[in-house]
Amino acid sequence: MKVLMLSADQFEDTELLAPLYRIREAGGEVDIASLSAGEIAGKHGYKVQANRAVADVNAGAYDALVLPGGKAPAALRDDAAVQALARAFMEADKPVAAICHGPRILVAAGLMNGRRATAYPEVGPELEEAGADYRDEAVIVDGNLITSRVPDDIPAFNRELMKKLRG
Amino acid sequence: MKVLMLSADQFEDTELLAPLYRIREAGGEVDIASLSAGEIAGKHGYKVQANRAVADVNAGAYDALVLPGGKAPAALRDDAAVQALARAFMEADKPVAAICHGPRILVAAGLMNGRRATAYPEVGPELEEAGADYRDEAVIVDGNLITSRVPDDIPAFNRELMKKLRG
Repeated sequence: MKVLMLSADQFEDTELLAPLYRIREAGGEVDIASLSAGEIAGKHGYKVQANRAVADVNAGAYDALVLPGGKAPAALRDDAAVQALARAFMEADKPVAAICHGPRILVAAGLMNGRRATAYPEVGPELEEAGADYRDEAVIVDGNLITSRVPDDIPAFNRELMKKLRG
Repeated sequence: MKVLMLSADQFEDTELLAPLYRIREAGGEVDIASLSAGEIAGKHGYKVQANRAVADVNAGAYDALVLPGGKAPAALRDDAAVQALARAFMEADKPVAAICHGPRILVAAGLMNGRRATAYPEVGPELEEAGADYRDEAVIVDGNLITSRVPDDIPAFNRELMKKLRG
């Protein structure tokens, strides 16, 4: 089980760390990719190593994509390599799990039209404008796509992510 | 599945939140007890509600005890009700999972003599002085007792905690 996370400075700390720890608990491996490889820092000061640069990542090497929230997604969403990665996972129908502001990356990549999803409340209008069916629920599973709103939703988010990863 | 956590201000945020989310993911319920009920804040600024005061807690209502780290354990360890709770879980042979500085509560309650355990490295000498067999490993399981060192050990810590909770 190999999972890719896309993030950057100002990530929402628990939204990156809790899924990271959960996947590792199940014996999975996680690569963290950012615009360049190196240390990234969360809003609350936790630091993790982004061990990949997005331009060097091959989506085919991974079973799933996780998009944590915070301010990181806004820093990533206009990057062509980030958008291409998001498209590759969605087109391959691999699990894509986005929480909080994470769905912004999927909006920017033009992937939300006709999808049922949730997100951080202030991101709701962006999802609707992108053609998504936005719901205010702890977790929404629409095919391969898993979305949640806030850190308190992590139990439901991780539960659905692990179900998909176990196949 | 009902779990008690003992913590206080200056808890290590991920060491409280990641097990909390993990237990909830599995459908379990968590009560957080502190010296008095009310909001407590972690070292990194996360806030959670302590919904119980330790003096009002009945250990018999719970299946396991979790002791997160940070500076919280030092604020709790001299309290008689905290020590009585720790003793009640250990004497009933219920799972007790302590990470980082969490084992300090077990040391203060006189529960570590002859036990194999790990902890945050600087707590190692305190464990040895208390008669424990201290090891520098990600997780040590000695009977009902699960101990870990640091946030990076959370995958192993939660894995062993969930094994015990599933019985």
